[in-house]
Amino acid sequence: MTKETFALKGTIIWSESLTKLSIHENAYLICENGICAGVFPELPDKFAGIPCRDTGNSIIIPGFTDLHLHAPQYSFRSIGMDLELLEWLDTLAFPEESKYADMEYAKKAYSIFAEDLKQSATTRASIFATLHVPATVQLMKLLEETGVHALVGKVNMDRNGAPSLQEKDADTSAAATRQWVEETLTGFQNVKPILTPRFTPSCSDELMKQLGQIQKDYHLPVQSHLSENLGEIAWVKELCPNTSFYGEAYDQFGLFGGEDCPTIMAHCVHCPEEEIELMKKRGVYIAHCSQSNSNLSSGIAPIRRYLEEGLHIGLGSDIAGGTSLSIFRAMSDAIQTSKLRWRLLDDSLKPLTVEEVFYMATAGGGSFFGKVGCFTPGYEFDAVILDDSTLLHPQPLSPKQRLERLIYLSDDRHIKGKYVSGVKLF
Amino acid sequence: MTKETFALKGTIIWSESLTKLSIHENAYLICENGICAGVFPELPDKFAGIPCRDTGNSIIIPGFTDLHLHAPQYSFRSIGMDLELLEWLDTLAFPEESKYADMEYAKKAYSIFAEDLKQSATTRASIFATLHVPATVQLMKLLEETGVHALVGKVNMDRNGAPSLQEKDADTSAAATRQWVEETLTGFQNVKPILTPRFTPSCSDELMKQLGQIQKDYHLPVQSHLSENLGEIAWVKELCPNTSFYGEAYDQFGLFGGEDCPTIMAHCVHCPEEEIELMKKRGVYIAHCSQSNSNLSSGIAPIRRYLEEGLHIGLGSDIAGGTSLSIFRAMSDAIQTSKLRWRLLDDSLKPLTVEEVFYMATAGGGSFFGKVGCFTPGYEFDAVILDDSTLLHPQPLSPKQRLERLIYLSDDRHIKGKYVSGVKLF
Repeated sequence: MTKETFALKGTIIWSESLTKLSIHENAYLICENGICAGVFPELPDKFAGIPCRDTGNSIIIPGFTDLHLHAPQYSFRSIGMDLELLEWLDTLAFPEESKYADMEYAKKAYSIFAEDLKQSATTRASIFATLHVPATVQLMKLLEETGVHALVGKVNMDRNGAPSLQEKDADTSAAATRQWVEETLTGFQNVKPILTPRFTPSCSDELMKQLGQIQKDYHLPVQSHLSENLGEIAWVKELCPNTSFYGEAYDQFGLFGGEDCPTIMAHCVHCPEEEIELMKKRGVYIAHCSQSNSNLSSGIAPIRRYLEEGLHIGLGSDIAGGTSLSIFRAMSDAIQTSKLRWRLLDDSLKPLTVEEVFYMATAGGGSFFGKVGCFTPGYEFDAVILDDSTLLHPQPLSPKQRLERLIYLSDDRHIKGKYVSGVKLF
Repeated sequence: MTKETFALKGTIIWSESLTKLSIHENAYLICENGICAGVFPELPDKFAGIPCRDTGNSIIIPGFTDLHLHAPQYSFRSIGMDLELLEWLDTLAFPEESKYADMEYAKKAYSIFAEDLKQSATTRASIFATLHVPATVQLMKLLEETGVHALVGKVNMDRNGAPSLQEKDADTSAAATRQWVEETLTGFQNVKPILTPRFTPSCSDELMKQLGQIQKDYHLPVQSHLSENLGEIAWVKELCPNTSFYGEAYDQFGLFGGEDCPTIMAHCVHCPEEEIELMKKRGVYIAHCSQSNSNLSSGIAPIRRYLEEGLHIGLGSDIAGGTSLSIFRAMSDAIQTSKLRWRLLDDSLKPLTVEEVFYMATAGGGSFFGKVGCFTPGYEFDAVILDDSTLLHPQPLSPKQRLERLIYLSDDRHIKGKYVSGVKLF
């Protein structure tokens, strides 16, 4: 996998801003050593003679960022969806995750996941593994081979797990984490570790304290869950009587954003005002996982409100709370649930638009990975080629109409090419 | 297309009742002259030597009934979804439907629709066409060729349409309807006419009166829309000051169920108590169109309540308020939105289960077409063969788990065979 200078030709669409798509038909998108050199109506003289992949009538978009998913849960996505969060964790998620102590099972299951992620339109992902170090390293190796860029977290949990899925104590969990970070911090090209306390109910204060120290020692990013479900929030209140809201349970240990601690918090369905304020102050990223929030009866996050506040927001598939790995599906779900929220809860928050969800799926989540998610010169070259010719229609369609159809109707068959940081995956 | 006696072998699943799946692995499903002769662990002596299609590890289910969709809107499904019902009708639906005055356009567009419907898991459908008689007849011819059984309605609308999409007056609309019924009542094997006043705002009282007479003269079934959207309901109240609820606007003209007037009402999101009572009394079928109700910001229908009342309920894709033609998708949407309704509106109405949505998709909606939708002996032989082998998984799965995965994850690639009333479509 070498980084070259080349062009893609087609109908190029990306987000100029939260409310504006930039659309160029029959245009050239140029990659120079892994970096986007811009979009041009004709190939500039400077680039004359570079290889060009003419995608015909295809649409070329920036790759998607999936800000939240659980790789070990991919195996049971869409199974047992008739349960709510805490019951679902005990009945399904924890027993399945405990199987990843078995390296043979882990390799088999993670291979299926890695291959499907490769074939998807996702170019960047922030991923939960399990508490097992060897299986987590195995997942990182498999992802490295796909070419997708990923942050992967060995999960920490030293309380309230299952008999077969819990670390002995805080020291054991922290020591395993240090060992894992040492093993994986360098050596991979595309994959890096991310600190991953599962959620407050899974981590004792002592463990959180030690994770806070590990974060400082290695300057690691952090991912966890926040204010997803009413039962969970009530439980955190019981577990952390010294905090006035859920986010503080992370913040008190230095695990809730800030300049040296880039943080993703998944869900944020039921955040009180102080929590929203603190996320804003700390620059915390919100992973909006709309399908999961429906499947697990959690509710609908007030994304319009968060956008108005200028918070960082990306989309997450949240496999297997969410059943679909497709960020196209995450976009249409985000629109649909925002309409239901508008109708049923609060008509002061208007439904999300195509432009807004496309922005969140690309530039919004992408920025957690640096200059990622759009075709502005200087950004990393992440691109996906979409062939919608099998979605027949009797009338002419504009590029925006074609994009909207892909958001609602596409599947992996429409994804014909993918590049991450200038490297061609297919 | 001849009706033969034959067997399908595979993992057979159907709804014994609203709450119970009947599951038979490695079993034989027998079709005798278009009628289901039962499911057997071994081929009974009586049927020794009949042709048998061994589907291997595939799942065989009854075909789905789509109780509500607009064929002319298939061309713009997933486009312009950032609008609410009445605005969406004026901006998108009416201009598109007006194109079906052009027979060339109609043939092109309806051919795409008919082919996709054929490839889907839907074996029965109740379909809105447009107000144009020639294009509606064309659609019926195309559907006849697919082998899918369909009720198709020439739409009536003599008010509040668009300049290019409205009939001159009640007499013109009624005369065109009589002409169309005469032309299509006999002569088709698989396709029959269904009386289709678009919705109350589109039909004057005089037109409704004449349609009531046509219904009686030809003993036609009826389909329309009911209590979908708050703006629509308020408008009906203005238009029909003599009625105390929306359903009465149909009932006063004999177009709202009863023994001689089988009726489907789509949506039923915001029905008042009297309306529910009248639907129950008249045996009106509800077409639950969950995706459309989200897309058009209509709300979430209280399906649990309707099930408890014993009302007839089937699922509808509602193309193009809904974007997906798949009744699998209609099932998962119905579950997901019922969870949001439970969380956000009324926790006395529990979310829908896999068993319940599967029942509605098969036997629930199927019963509008007679003995259709299950594998009980004596029922019409509608069957679909599903190959889920490309949905890889590391662990063993039960038939019910496999069915649940198909509900959330399947697309047309998984549909490997289809029979309607004993006739093999592929």
